Amino acid sequence: MTRTAVIAGQGALAPAIIAQLDDPLVFSLEGYQPDMPTTPFRLERLVPFLDELIGQDVTRVVFAGAIRRPRLDPEAFDPRTAQLVPRILMAMQAGDDAALREVLKVFEENDLKICGIEEIAPDLIPAEGVLTGQPGKADQQDAERAAQILSATGPLDIGQGCVVAQGQCLAIETLPGTAAMLAFAGRHADLRPNPKGGRGVFYKAPKPGQDRRIDLPTIGPDTVDQAAAAGLAGIAWQAGSVILLQRDEALRRAQAAGLFLWARA
Amino acid sequence: MTRTAVIAGQGALAPAIIAQLDDPLVFSLEGYQPDMPTTPFRLERLVPFLDELIGQDVTRVVFAGAIRRPRLDPEAFDPRTAQLVPRILMAMQAGDDAALREVLKVFEENDLKICGIEEIAPDLIPAEGVLTGQPGKADQQDAERAAQILSATGPLDIGQGCVVAQGQCLAIETLPGTAAMLAFAGRHADLRPNPKGGRGVFYKAPKPGQDRRIDLPTIGPDTVDQAAAAGLAGIAWQAGSVILLQRDEALRRAQAAGLFLWARA
Repeated sequence: MTRTAVIAGQGALAPAIIAQLDDPLVFSLEGYQPDMPTTPFRLERLVPFLDELIGQDVTRVVFAGAIRRPRLDPEAFDPRTAQLVPRILMAMQAGDDAALREVLKVFEENDLKICGIEEIAPDLIPAEGVLTGQPGKADQQDAERAAQILSATGPLDIGQGCVVAQGQCLAIETLPGTAAMLAFAGRHADLRPNPKGGRGVFYKAPKPGQDRRIDLPTIGPDTVDQAAAAGLAGIAWQAGSVILLQRDEALRRAQAAGLFLWARA
Repeated sequence: MTRTAVIAGQGALAPAIIAQLDDPLVFSLEGYQPDMPTTPFRLERLVPFLDELIGQDVTRVVFAGAIRRPRLDPEAFDPRTAQLVPRILMAMQAGDDAALREVLKVFEENDLKICGIEEIAPDLIPAEGVLTGQPGKADQQDAERAAQILSATGPLDIGQGCVVAQGQCLAIETLPGTAAMLAFAGRHADLRPNPKGGRGVFYKAPKPGQDRRIDLPTIGPDTVDQAAAAGLAGIAWQAGSVILLQRDEALRRAQAAGLFLWARA
């Protein structure tokens, strides 16, 4: 029998994925444990961890939930993982994506297949269409400009979201993440040139060329609340490339707040 | 006799420029008057304003200080300026730079020369060199990555600054401006992966292809205070392309706070 290991991040994605799997082994990065039973592991002991997976007949690994780059403790490295450090440190200079890709390569070199959310729970990734509400013309233009901004910033490995209102970029997602960016956009919402014009769109898309097996952008009911608190008209995202968690609850909250949710082609 | 008109924005740039000129006429956008005597004008009455300049023998116009896009009152337009509206509205869709460029074209069509800060007060634009402090290796890498980020975001007409710490982008300047971005970076400074590593660099550069006669990025003593409050190691910028206001005071505050100031090649 072969088994699947889930590397669980915080948030609602891991439980949703675990529910789709038959008796998975569930792990999490020490210091970033989600609110559920998991076996913690440390990146400083990656090689022994991979040995453990292989010893338990694991052949597939799923990353469920965002992994933040952990603070590494130089004294916690085992000798074999220590040999990987120069390689991963080099990659880190080019950003989170590059570092994570390097870690994934180490999994694959040990014959562990990295499995995407798309394979395990395709229903979490909405196909093209407006899920609720109705993006107006101004919103469509803002979504278009936001998509252009993200295609240009994508290769920089910065973030996966931005906020555009009336053609103006109010915020770009960076290391602090979506919630921090939406709070920033909300604090400065009075800068919209026309008080009666478009209220603005939060747009989300994966970085071009990013590894879709991990770290697909994720939105959910909390994102809806944050976008509503920022005074935005709605949320749009690249259809087929963004995970929507707790769809029913997200739709309910969007309807209550008068926001559209739009999986944009 | 020909005269120079200064369009004064808020901040210390306009007084510095006025001090270099012989008997200039000083104007400001209504609603954005700086703390000095100026004759206000409205963008909705741009054509009569240009007539007034020409009537007073003005041949050169200097934009001193950032101009925020004003909220336009449809009822305040005179008939001739109203004819320009479709043209300027079109340009606005592509961002602030494009809109401002379009307004400048209208000046030039009326034989008013737009004059850059470089022509009038070249000393305000530091040439290459470290002005104070010493950027370390980590800071140099952060400045390099920040410069790369701005060259990629520049064509998007978003902003002229970003903050990078330990290779990670903490913040990108958007419509709310530098102070808001540095406050954001400061709020999230605890995300730096290594607490003992590089504290991060605020980097500033003009957008590639931006009109250097107006809207060159500007820093000054307040910027130094804001970067210090954000816990950064220093400020770097594209040498020859950024205005440094009140240089002595900026240097004094940077020294007091232990920040470097670096006009980077």
